[in-house]
Amino acid sequence: MKKHNFSAGPCILPQSVFREASQAVLNFNGIDLSILEISHRSKEFIAVMEEAQSLALELLGLQDKGYKALFLQGGASLQFLNVAYNLLENKAAYLNTGTWSSKALKEAKLLGEVVEVASSKDANFNYIPKNYTIPEDADYFHCTSNNTIFGTQMFDFPQTSVPVVADMSSDIFSRKLDFSKFSLIYAGAQKNMGPAGTVLVVIKEDILGKVTRIIPSMLDYKIHLSKESMFNTPPVFAVYVSMLTMRWLKNLGGIEAIEARNREKAGIIYREIDRNPLFKGFAATEDRSIMNATFNLTDEALKPVFDQMAKEAGINGINGHRSVGGYRASMYNAMEPESVQVLADIMKELENKA
Amino acid sequence: MKKHNFSAGPCILPQSVFREASQAVLNFNGIDLSILEISHRSKEFIAVMEEAQSLALELLGLQDKGYKALFLQGGASLQFLNVAYNLLENKAAYLNTGTWSSKALKEAKLLGEVVEVASSKDANFNYIPKNYTIPEDADYFHCTSNNTIFGTQMFDFPQTSVPVVADMSSDIFSRKLDFSKFSLIYAGAQKNMGPAGTVLVVIKEDILGKVTRIIPSMLDYKIHLSKESMFNTPPVFAVYVSMLTMRWLKNLGGIEAIEARNREKAGIIYREIDRNPLFKGFAATEDRSIMNATFNLTDEALKPVFDQMAKEAGINGINGHRSVGGYRASMYNAMEPESVQVLADIMKELENKA
Ligand SMILES: Cc1ncc(COP(=O)(O)O)c(C=O)c1O
Ligand SMILES: Cc1ncc(COP(=O)(O)O)c(C=O)c1O
Ligand SMILES: [Mg+2]
Ligand SMILES: [Mg+2]
Ligand SMILES: [Mg+2]
Ligand SMILES: [Mg+2]
Repeated sequence: MKKHNFSAGPCILPQSVFREASQAVLNFNGIDLSILEISHRSKEFIAVMEEAQSLALELLGLQDKGYKALFLQGGASLQFLNVAYNLLENKAAYLNTGTWSSKALKEAKLLGEVVEVASSKDANFNYIPKNYTIPEDADYFHCTSNNTIFGTQMFDFPQTSVPVVADMSSDIFSRKLDFSKFSLIYAGAQKNMGPAGTVLVVIKEDILGKVTRIIPSMLDYKIHLSKESMFNTPPVFAVYVSMLTMRWLKNLGGIEAIEARNREKAGIIYREIDRNPLFKGFAATEDRSIMNATFNLTDEALKPVFDQMAKEAGINGINGHRSVGGYRASMYNAMEPESVQVLADIMKELENKA
Repeated sequence: MKKHNFSAGPCILPQSVFREASQAVLNFNGIDLSILEISHRSKEFIAVMEEAQSLALELLGLQDKGYKALFLQGGASLQFLNVAYNLLENKAAYLNTGTWSSKALKEAKLLGEVVEVASSKDANFNYIPKNYTIPEDADYFHCTSNNTIFGTQMFDFPQTSVPVVADMSSDIFSRKLDFSKFSLIYAGAQKNMGPAGTVLVVIKEDILGKVTRIIPSMLDYKIHLSKESMFNTPPVFAVYVSMLTMRWLKNLGGIEAIEARNREKAGIIYREIDRNPLFKGFAATEDRSIMNATFNLTDEALKPVFDQMAKEAGINGINGHRSVGGYRASMYNAMEPESVQVLADIMKELENKA
């Protein structure tokens, strides 16, 4: 049965990527070895790593602008720590827009002064704070560009002289931005980029080397950069599948092409949420994420019926996070508009039934 | 062409595991979703994680003995840091038997006093020091059970009241030991356990909670234990393939069965190294690893000829590490004795030719 996978991450990836990856597990590039058994020092894997790094920069429009891309382990969560270890000397500014921002902020506090410039915690993070002030003497400003759990997304980024660091785990490669406004971008692979098991870190090299503390090797961006993501054994398969997914995106027309499709998908679901009296959106309208749509039933009693309808339609992974309840439809890059239409259709069908 | 993969890691895994993993990338357990797109919170993946943790303890004979198993990211290299962060309060004792021990020691020094109880650096780590003394007031003693680069292995472990921590990255699940003598064992998956991208950490729980420092969340074993390896998104595929590999090992008869086969393989190669006047072993005879055999040509001029013969025989990955030169034949669990015989045969053939 065809599944419509709305999982928040790990999540849907292109079917063509699954086919290529499956084949590479048996025989990679016709070399009679599995991608799982080749050395990370082999010329075959070095080529994969180089292509992955270069595709990441190319998709973001950051080639030849002083940026480097790393593929590391530990997920976005380890970057919460690494960012502070590598950049926080005196003071850092954090915008708190949800669970992930809060966790990032918590780790940074272990290493220095942290100013929370604004928070939407007062309203269970259903909006993005605006009009906050970033201290000019901050070492960096940290934000979460898309709040996976609450379904909000930042559409404006502050104009500031302070280096901007963004956790783009759940909207990397989904929309055009001037990425050169960011000094550091990180993203766990397991949404738009690939399977769980690697994290992309894109760094403007000139922001490094300014802290006085000694950084443990595995947390030190300079060490990872000097070894081109091979300071220790990289997560070979996760990098390979991420590379395939970025290739797929490039062939599809890159970020511009996918953004149009992502807006189309978001339009389908939000129109239905607004139109349908049985559903209401969770996030403030102007901050609605084009990746994760969060919504609730107006009458919770309808949940068993709706869940059964979703199951019969092959819909997977729409249960909301416990912090929000209700539903969350994650519509990452690889999802076809048809799948979102299937969801909108059963929402309408519920209305007709009820 | 059938390849004989002697790669030091990532390395050979069972062919049946490749087939199952390849299928799961297309359709996992018949659920019409790829293993790469399912949520780590799905019941399907939770079952995988639980089976992996329980197989690891079962294979080591550590069930119901106060141990827990974790599958984390960051490789063995991040454990160099984590071990010290979680256990080093006053003083730690390290045995230095090679590159990996040295790196572990280096990270520990960032967090407290480290005593190097002995080192074989004087002889380019070609032997395992014996008769060293472990300070009784050390928080723990750290050793590397198998030195992947130099081809030495520890066959005796010290009798001590100090908790013993071992990096078993390159000999985990390869031979029977009384694993209950260890308080903490860690091993990057990418040798005997699975693909690159996850690290096994087996911890005796009662050794934790004794340091006074605040530990960053992602480095804190207690946090990972409390979330059963799911504090953040685990490396789903690497854990899955590790689980399949451990299942394979269990079905084969577990560590006892594989140890017999590993000894048989080591016998084949070391007998040929000793017999053949064109080759000499690198490691001290009594410390020779049954996982990685290091050896050199007595006449370097024969290298191009021998390399060509190896290539024609389908032999892959026998180039020695630059610290040792010559050759290294890594013969991990999944390698069949026949493959080692193919290598021994061409060594003999070289002698006949020369
Ligand atoms: C925005 C955001 N940041 C960070 C994380 C944590 O990522 P990881 O599980 O890779 O550590 C997530 C996970 O869903 C996320 O959505
Ligand atoms: C004994 C030993 N320890 C540690 C490591 C480092 O492992 P990782 O690359 O997973 O950090 C290796 C890698 O080969 C190893 O052989
Ligand atoms: Mg969030
Ligand atoms: Mg409505
Ligand atoms: Mg070594
Ligand atoms: Mg000889």
